[in-house]
Amino acid sequence: MIATENVIASANAETPAHAPTRSLTDMSSMITPPVGVALLGATGSVGTSALRVLERHRERFVPVALTAHSNQDALQEQVAQFSPAYVGLVAPPTDELPEDWGKGRSCLVEAATRPDVQIVINAVVGAAGLEATLAALTAGKRVALANKETLVMAGQIVTDTARRHGGALVPVDSEHSAILQCLAGREPSDVRRLIITASGGPFRTWNSERIAQATVSDALRHPTWQMGSKITIDSATLANKALEVIEAHHLFGIPYDRIDVVVHPQSIVHSLVEFVDGSVLAQMGVPSMELPILYALTWPERLPDAGVPPFDLVGLGSLTFEAVRHDDFPMLALGIAAGRQGGAAPAVFNAANEVAVAHFLDGRLPFAGIVQCVSAAVDALGTMPGDTLDALLAADAAARDYVNAKVGS
Amino acid sequence: MIATENVIASANAETPAHAPTRSLTDMSSMITPPVGVALLGATGSVGTSALRVLERHRERFVPVALTAHSNQDALQEQVAQFSPAYVGLVAPPTDELPEDWGKGRSCLVEAATRPDVQIVINAVVGAAGLEATLAALTAGKRVALANKETLVMAGQIVTDTARRHGGALVPVDSEHSAILQCLAGREPSDVRRLIITASGGPFRTWNSERIAQATVSDALRHPTWQMGSKITIDSATLANKALEVIEAHHLFGIPYDRIDVVVHPQSIVHSLVEFVDGSVLAQMGVPSMELPILYALTWPERLPDAGVPPFDLVGLGSLTFEAVRHDDFPMLALGIAAGRQGGAAPAVFNAANEVAVAHFLDGRLPFAGIVQCVSAAVDALGTMPGDTLDALLAADAAARDYVNAKVGS
Repeated sequence: MIATENVIASANAETPAHAPTRSLTDMSSMITPPVGVALLGATGSVGTSALRVLERHRERFVPVALTAHSNQDALQEQVAQFSPAYVGLVAPPTDELPEDWGKGRSCLVEAATRPDVQIVINAVVGAAGLEATLAALTAGKRVALANKETLVMAGQIVTDTARRHGGALVPVDSEHSAILQCLAGREPSDVRRLIITASGGPFRTWNSERIAQATVSDALRHPTWQMGSKITIDSATLANKALEVIEAHHLFGIPYDRIDVVVHPQSIVHSLVEFVDGSVLAQMGVPSMELPILYALTWPERLPDAGVPPFDLVGLGSLTFEAVRHDDFPMLALGIAAGRQGGAAPAVFNAANEVAVAHFLDGRLPFAGIVQCVSAAVDALGTMPGDTLDALLAADAAARDYVNAKVGS
Repeated sequence: MIATENVIASANAETPAHAPTRSLTDMSSMITPPVGVALLGATGSVGTSALRVLERHRERFVPVALTAHSNQDALQEQVAQFSPAYVGLVAPPTDELPEDWGKGRSCLVEAATRPDVQIVINAVVGAAGLEATLAALTAGKRVALANKETLVMAGQIVTDTARRHGGALVPVDSEHSAILQCLAGREPSDVRRLIITASGGPFRTWNSERIAQATVSDALRHPTWQMGSKITIDSATLANKALEVIEAHHLFGIPYDRIDVVVHPQSIVHSLVEFVDGSVLAQMGVPSMELPILYALTWPERLPDAGVPPFDLVGLGSLTFEAVRHDDFPMLALGIAAGRQGGAAPAVFNAANEVAVAHFLDGRLPFAGIVQCVSAAVDALGTMPGDTLDALLAADAAARDYVNAKVGS
């Protein structure tokens, strides 16, 4: 049970695991005061936000390792600014890399397991982040997790790994950070319901006919959040919310029938927790990833920070909440059903969605084709074995092949 | 420092005191499982709500003492239902009292200090509640405090008493309960700002000319909360918010310049805490006193309870927030200034307001006369000594005499 205390995640309601143990205070009182941070996915939207946070708190945190997927130029600039001890590029665009840089997918694990790293910010997009998360947790690191696919694909394995090796798993997603802040150490048995808010995306007010014909530029026009293109499309289909429900289930040990999704167009209330006595706590803030990133670094403490604009309740106008239009956004129910099914189904859902979104962005699939591909993939492959990491990776690969073949045909 | 841990209240930011120590679990594991509760002010609005809560959780809590001000018939009915060991009436309306009932103001202290009482719910209206609060805290009880005058009159003395004797002070006011829930054990140094919400009362949208001519029935028409008449008038003048700001200052150890008031007409968000990192937590719920009463009994735990209607975010419509119109509601700034002035000033503000409101309700003072009386009283008497309980009681009495004389003249 000792390891339980070092992981926020709890895969079932019987093992509450929110007890904060290693706080920032402990970390900063170690021999070398600044906490070493590995940032995986440094050039993406979350990565660049994270670097702004790290820069503001450079007396506390030092980015000792930076990796990116393929944006060599942007990474080069970050290296010039932060002088990390380790640099890695997953998919180098050219052969002209600095020779001391790590190359290929293995650089994620190398960065995440370095002895001078205490916190790994995993902001890798897609399933590629899983291996690094597991390696970091096995090495006893705190993983600030922006890569939700990690928990969607292999929630049970990841939370078990964290418990077994004393790693800590802290969410960076604004919704899960909100829930973590609302829980503040309370146990899953105190929770009646998690309420995850959704902006509703760009098609919130569109009818189903119009949604079916949406173009890439329509889908990339997110009303409240500036994010990468994959997650922006997922916000348009609501696949993103399905991934978040599955992630919340694993992180907080709450059964699916006690996790609701509510549309909140203003993206000010980032999520809510309804407790067993009927009281509700909500976390609010301006839509900025810098806030949950900082909290993931400092949890359960807070650090004074002036990075986000002051919260102006009066200036907000009104906060509204709507029911999800499930008929027009079938991806949400599809993804939650895959989560409930368990086994390989959520991994298949996630991988099929990832490939289908890529095809949509490349113009090879209409918007309505995304859910059709994913639904077919879950039907065909959702019952594949999912009890080991290898089995899940096989299901992931099968789902990718399935959608590629379907779109190619 | 040991005693500090047993009081939520902390009169200054240097002594954080939110650490929950004696939880309900501890209490219920004592030799006699049901926790003995004394309910002071049993026939009022908060009192009757409290009895509904106690009735629903009778396996945990037993009302062993009930007192009321003067409503003998209502108290008799409660006694028939709950068979408390002690019954007291502060101002018996007739001489025909059951002979085993306590009589007069001393019955509050008798009820509050009984050995079979572990929690005192102080729902007495007005300054009469102070003596019972101090007696209960001195006896090491938990005081679930609905009587905000206790802290307004003598915040420093009350919080010192709680610390010295190991009593615990837990708020019942929905606003302060909300803040306590948002803080969840965090220290005052983590707080950037408390944001107390105000419904705005019945005159929120009225102009100043119309407000000045408001009748008693206008002022008693509260838009969202069903409460007693004194507090309803205080909601119309916003005196109630001034009292709450002073109370919050003492309860949570937050300086006045970090406590804001925001008008929120729907009374769904009961208050908010902005933390030093810019994150904001809010507590929400249907406007029912039963929820904060239950939390004050169970804090820091929660008990499953189906007493309040389910929280329906979608059904809420929209949540809006407005700035306070200070020019039209001068009582708020007047009260906060009295709080900042300290010494006897807040006691004078409170007592003058109590008497002025009574005169307004009796038709002897126009609505605009309330703030005029209170302002004059604070000007005349606010610098009286306020460093001892006797001094504060003298200031309280002087303020009452002052307003009575002013209205009588």
